[in-house]
Amino acid sequence: MSLIVMKFGGSSVGDPERMKRVAKRISERKQEGHQCVVVVSAMGDTTDDLIDLTKQICTTTPPAREMDMLLSTGEQVSVALLSMAIHSLGCSAVSFTGWQAGMYTEDVHGKARITDIQPERILKALDNDKIVIVAGFQGMTGEGEITTLGRGGSDTTAVALAAAIKADVCEIFTDVDGVYSTDPRIVRVARKLNEISYDEMLELANLGAAVLHPRAVEYAKNYNVPLVVRSSFNHNEGTKVKEEAVMEQGLAVRGIAYDKNVARISILGVEEKVGQLAKVFTALAKEQIDVDIIVQSGVMNGAADFSFTVSLSDKDKALQVIEGIRSTVGFREVTSQENLVKVSIVGAGMVSTPGVAAKMFEVISELGLSINMVSTSEIKTSCVIDGSRLIEVIQALHTAYGLDTDSQVFVGGPSERR
Amino acid sequence: MSLIVMKFGGSSVGDPERMKRVAKRISERKQEGHQCVVVVSAMGDTTDDLIDLTKQICTTTPPAREMDMLLSTGEQVSVALLSMAIHSLGCSAVSFTGWQAGMYTEDVHGKARITDIQPERILKALDNDKIVIVAGFQGMTGEGEITTLGRGGSDTTAVALAAAIKADVCEIFTDVDGVYSTDPRIVRVARKLNEISYDEMLELANLGAAVLHPRAVEYAKNYNVPLVVRSSFNHNEGTKVKEEAVMEQGLAVRGIAYDKNVARISILGVEEKVGQLAKVFTALAKEQIDVDIIVQSGVMNGAADFSFTVSLSDKDKALQVIEGIRSTVGFREVTSQENLVKVSIVGAGMVSTPGVAAKMFEVISELGLSINMVSTSEIKTSCVIDGSRLIEVIQALHTAYGLDTDSQVFVGGPSERR
Repeated sequence: MSLIVMKFGGSSVGDPERMKRVAKRISERKQEGHQCVVVVSAMGDTTDDLIDLTKQICTTTPPAREMDMLLSTGEQVSVALLSMAIHSLGCSAVSFTGWQAGMYTEDVHGKARITDIQPERILKALDNDKIVIVAGFQGMTGEGEITTLGRGGSDTTAVALAAAIKADVCEIFTDVDGVYSTDPRIVRVARKLNEISYDEMLELANLGAAVLHPRAVEYAKNYNVPLVVRSSFNHNEGTKVKEEAVMEQGLAVRGIAYDKNVARISILGVEEKVGQLAKVFTALAKEQIDVDIIVQSGVMNGAADFSFTVSLSDKDKALQVIEGIRSTVGFREVTSQENLVKVSIVGAGMVSTPGVAAKMFEVISELGLSINMVSTSEIKTSCVIDGSRLIEVIQALHTAYGLDTDSQVFVGGPSERR
Repeated sequence: MSLIVMKFGGSSVGDPERMKRVAKRISERKQEGHQCVVVVSAMGDTTDDLIDLTKQICTTTPPAREMDMLLSTGEQVSVALLSMAIHSLGCSAVSFTGWQAGMYTEDVHGKARITDIQPERILKALDNDKIVIVAGFQGMTGEGEITTLGRGGSDTTAVALAAAIKADVCEIFTDVDGVYSTDPRIVRVARKLNEISYDEMLELANLGAAVLHPRAVEYAKNYNVPLVVRSSFNHNEGTKVKEEAVMEQGLAVRGIAYDKNVARISILGVEEKVGQLAKVFTALAKEQIDVDIIVQSGVMNGAADFSFTVSLSDKDKALQVIEGIRSTVGFREVTSQENLVKVSIVGAGMVSTPGVAAKMFEVISELGLSINMVSTSEIKTSCVIDGSRLIEVIQALHTAYGLDTDSQVFVGGPSERR
């Protein structure tokens, strides 16, 4: 008998038929003799529908606190219905909201972090032989305010819960068969990975692979929670995410990720004084703008150029911030560039295999593209390049690193949101 | 400055436009200098839509606990949206679920009674100059289980809250202008009452007038909460419900109610022994069947006949129960009758005005109808009659008791559900 946490995203429970299929799957697991805790997101379009309602009602930006009150109902509907569906199959289930499940978060709305889990009610229900259904994506502050965890929140709920109740495994059910060597919508011969390490998964998730949220992976790594990413539409084995993952056939690269949500900002002719860079990035951080790759070019005549990337949606705000500190920093010019893409190769084997990055640069050059920026870590190399030929680049890299398979991938419905 | 509780039903907030209108009304009240606590029901069809979903998912009756988890989301959506709408108008508001508002109930699902209110969060928010929006119809048990209060629950939430925070008045906003002398859909010259006493309102509500739920009226009477029933679509004065109400022009009858949800069951030839009746009604009570009027006819040859009314939906179950105790009670025959209606006249003046009931019997006889059963209290008389000529009967009684007015009544949208 194992203690299993199963997480189903919004598209897996998107309509009554899918809800019933998920209920069947859970009750089969229970009948195999396992204890099951299930985390579920809001049904399909629920969240969008609720947001639409606010747009019809509000002329100003709604308070984040009230937005959390509103959006958290989506998961509450899901858990109640899923519990009913399981009852209909003759199993006993009980649903909990975030606050009922003892999910405590910091006092921030829209993207709260979990601070503590008090799973007594869950454990008691498991002792009473019940399947426990927990609303993902939500929690409560110490003062009884309802919070939501933001994007990828249900993944995080599942992993954090698995850690808190010491589950044997946390299964993340989604609309694809597992984690792929790259986006199967772009590369039809993408390879489903049998295993991947937390670190590799973390890089892939951070670099744009939507299948798991980085925060959830981080949580899994920190608490050593074994994860399995698998399809809610079939019984294929999925991908195991764990501390040490076996590399197949000596491949150095596990996967290729890309991120189109990239803009480059260059500040040219910055006066060479101590602390100039710090001023820029402190000002950006104050406005909650995340900076990714930073590159400084050589100093000439007492002035330096440097470039960095931000997400596309932050670009205009970042330019404003920089203009605002022009007089205190002192620089000649600011430029920005869109239509870029960040392509990354990830693999724990890169450290011990010389020439992996070199091959990446070579493949990109052979396509006649120049590389704008480069960033590396022990297990990844990222290049920022012109975005217009993304598909060609990904396909060429996929082939060059020996990742192509013979079989074509079935790509399911819309990807999960929460 | 007054402390006001305002309650808006589901049709008053049925769509974004109505929601905005309600928000405007509330913020006007606030700007007049009052402290406002608002209780609101689920938007329009939300509850029905949720129930539809359960029908698509469940093949068995869903557990009542999960039904409460599900349905309570309807009010949570309403309070969040209404709070946002008020924010859009530049006022500060905060929404609370039942559990956040400190609404404690007994541990029963679908029709829990309020056991305690701990309004600290509400009072603190009022101190901070906020408009407080509370989800009607819901509460929490001491163990943190979400409960719903059943039909009329939002009325009860509003009145109970008004009592707990010692509000100066509890305004119940609905789709009609107030409490009428009878159903204005039947009698176009029905009279809007300026005042009515708790006791009269309680009788009318119990006897089928849907404008206020009996439980809410009872609560108001017990805690002496001044109520006003008024329209959410205009600023007309509405009806005051209070301890002592002035009777207009010496009328003895305040209002006429009817209830079509009536079935008669007769048990014939019951052996005359002590405790026979108790056996029957104990057995019915055990199955949660409410019995209304009970009539026993004379004893002949050591056997008695008696009749009672139950609600239509309980009829078949009641017949089963009686068959089940046939051997222990001993009787000759059971019969039942549908297509009946209970018509009632209500008025505190009946006690001091002779002949009021006699006039009722006379009016009904003059229409050529026989009276099947009669029941009386100090302030009401009810007759069970054939249901086919209900409208005629009500109109004739309304005229006979001098209740007709010259002005015709505008009848609004669908009546409130919660």
